[in-house]
Amino acid sequence: MAMPVPPVIEWRDGAVRILDQRRLPDAVEVLHCTTVEQVNEAIRTLAIRGAPALGVAAAYAVALAATRVDGPDEATYLERLDTVIDQIIATRPTAVNLAWAAERMRAAAHELGTLADHRPTDGIRDPRESIRHGLLALAHEIAADNEQRHRALAEAGADLFASGQRVLHHCNTGPLATAASYGTALGVLQAANQRHGIEVVVSETRPLLQGGRLTTWELAQWGVPFTLITDSMAADRMRRGGIDAVIVGADRIAANGDVANKIGTYSHAVAAGAHDLPFYVAAPLSTIDFDTPNGDAIPIEERATEEVHGYGDWRWSPSDAPVANPAFDVTPHERITAIITEHGVHRPPYLESLGRFAAASDEAA
Amino acid sequence: MAMPVPPVIEWRDGAVRILDQRRLPDAVEVLHCTTVEQVNEAIRTLAIRGAPALGVAAAYAVALAATRVDGPDEATYLERLDTVIDQIIATRPTAVNLAWAAERMRAAAHELGTLADHRPTDGIRDPRESIRHGLLALAHEIAADNEQRHRALAEAGADLFASGQRVLHHCNTGPLATAASYGTALGVLQAANQRHGIEVVVSETRPLLQGGRLTTWELAQWGVPFTLITDSMAADRMRRGGIDAVIVGADRIAANGDVANKIGTYSHAVAAGAHDLPFYVAAPLSTIDFDTPNGDAIPIEERATEEVHGYGDWRWSPSDAPVANPAFDVTPHERITAIITEHGVHRPPYLESLGRFAAASDEAA
Repeated sequence: MAMPVPPVIEWRDGAVRILDQRRLPDAVEVLHCTTVEQVNEAIRTLAIRGAPALGVAAAYAVALAATRVDGPDEATYLERLDTVIDQIIATRPTAVNLAWAAERMRAAAHELGTLADHRPTDGIRDPRESIRHGLLALAHEIAADNEQRHRALAEAGADLFASGQRVLHHCNTGPLATAASYGTALGVLQAANQRHGIEVVVSETRPLLQGGRLTTWELAQWGVPFTLITDSMAADRMRRGGIDAVIVGADRIAANGDVANKIGTYSHAVAAGAHDLPFYVAAPLSTIDFDTPNGDAIPIEERATEEVHGYGDWRWSPSDAPVANPAFDVTPHERITAIITEHGVHRPPYLESLGRFAAASDEAA
Repeated sequence: MAMPVPPVIEWRDGAVRILDQRRLPDAVEVLHCTTVEQVNEAIRTLAIRGAPALGVAAAYAVALAATRVDGPDEATYLERLDTVIDQIIATRPTAVNLAWAAERMRAAAHELGTLADHRPTDGIRDPRESIRHGLLALAHEIAADNEQRHRALAEAGADLFASGQRVLHHCNTGPLATAASYGTALGVLQAANQRHGIEVVVSETRPLLQGGRLTTWELAQWGVPFTLITDSMAADRMRRGGIDAVIVGADRIAANGDVANKIGTYSHAVAAGAHDLPFYVAAPLSTIDFDTPNGDAIPIEERATEEVHGYGDWRWSPSDAPVANPAFDVTPHERITAIITEHGVHRPPYLESLGRFAAASDEAA
């Protein structure tokens, strides 16, 4: 259990190294990405996943792009960098953190470019090098900031749970999903367990089984007691009194508090409502998209049919069976008891309780 | 698609032949069971499954037992047969049809035994042979009766659905589950499609994936349009207006209308309720246990942890991850719009609408 685990993502020797979460828990392997396309492929295939981790990945992907792109002049260089940034953003459409970090890097690149233009060219320092150094420093800053915010988030939510409570958790929102020492929803449970002692009910999260593969693996490493169930068992377990609360992460939160998260989240929210259980969402402020008024405006990624026909290389359904495979669903704000961010526990109405952080978000961006 | 499929179960040459549903749809293989233990193992491992099919399997298992058991006298013979019948009933605890058919066979054996006692022993005919022939005839009768009842059930429910409606279906309740030409819930949808043209939304039904493997396979053979989803996608699809109704089968129905059915059924019922969609249950009268007052009194089978750690021989979760694996859940009668049997569409209150068939059920038993 206590095997040393490589960082979820790190910059080393001019390349981006990514822990391959597709292979966990069977194999601990690291992808050494020397090109942006390798990072993009890792994002698309979910070698790295989880909204906050995708933000860090996007930041390092842009830093990598800055070292790989070239051009005869500053303007061409920035134009080509912009094109690659667009490709990074296009890898996955739902998680707002990815675009958030990439756009923050883009803005910095153009700002650094402007500075470079105005700096006397002394023939020693290539202005593109200034941009490259500046972007890598910013990517490291985003990663460090990410670490600090998740620690604060976990602390903010820990006292929502009492000793011995059994808390349903969906998908994976641990350090693997955040690229930090603490997860989002799972970070809150990690902190709650340290303070009070709780139990986690892990829903396996078909089709990609992040709960069954990753959350179980993380909880076992920490020694947090848990029970693994299929997604379909949650409502029954609530009816029989075996669940006290639900907590999930988020891939994007609209300004009104509607939450896009891993498919199956809404099903748990409906069941929680039917059994009068609190339903919590934990996510850093960077997950809140104040430009998206409500859940209907959130684009939902439709993924490959094979994911529903089986898992990994295994298939159990007829290969021509028609399939729907939305990767996320939207839980309307009415079904959410509270949203936990690094700034505390926010209650409805979210337009107010979250809205007052819109400026802080812009600043961070 | 139109490959010839062997019967789900049949008696041939003094043995019980069972289509191995664990291998479907990849392989069409038949188990040739010459001992009762082989039939019991087929039941326990879900080579044959589905409440009505288990009734037929139990009947043939007892007929097979009658040819394998022996004893120095009638009383010992019947005593030993009783022991084997108890083993058959113990294979799976939740589906009442299994015990229903086995007990019906047991009663017949004792009745035939009594007749044999009073018949002058002419030295030509072994009284145990009378029991064996009588039990095989009754097993064939139970199978024929099963066929007729499911045809009536499918017809009874077909007009609950209108042209173009999209109906969510859980697990597998087709001919594979009933050992008849028509299924229960899927039989109703088969008939509804023939009359009106409908679409089926197939929930894959973790952990054993009967929806993804078997229901897709049956619907494709019939040419009924369908879309396969993970169980966790149903509620979201309802919220977005993609489901008009839900229909499921049942493993046991209590006298008050509470329904035990495949795990995940209750989750769909809660979601249907939250979106004002009708929730139907289809099952033959033999599934109703008038001796069980309500769902709390229905025993729920807990199955092996490996089923949740993966599927078949495949594992994706840590092998020591603690697991819950109830094979069934209970949907309280308040959440059920109507129950469809071979006698028609029964509405609440079920104590009345079903209760008046208690006598008919006793008679059948």
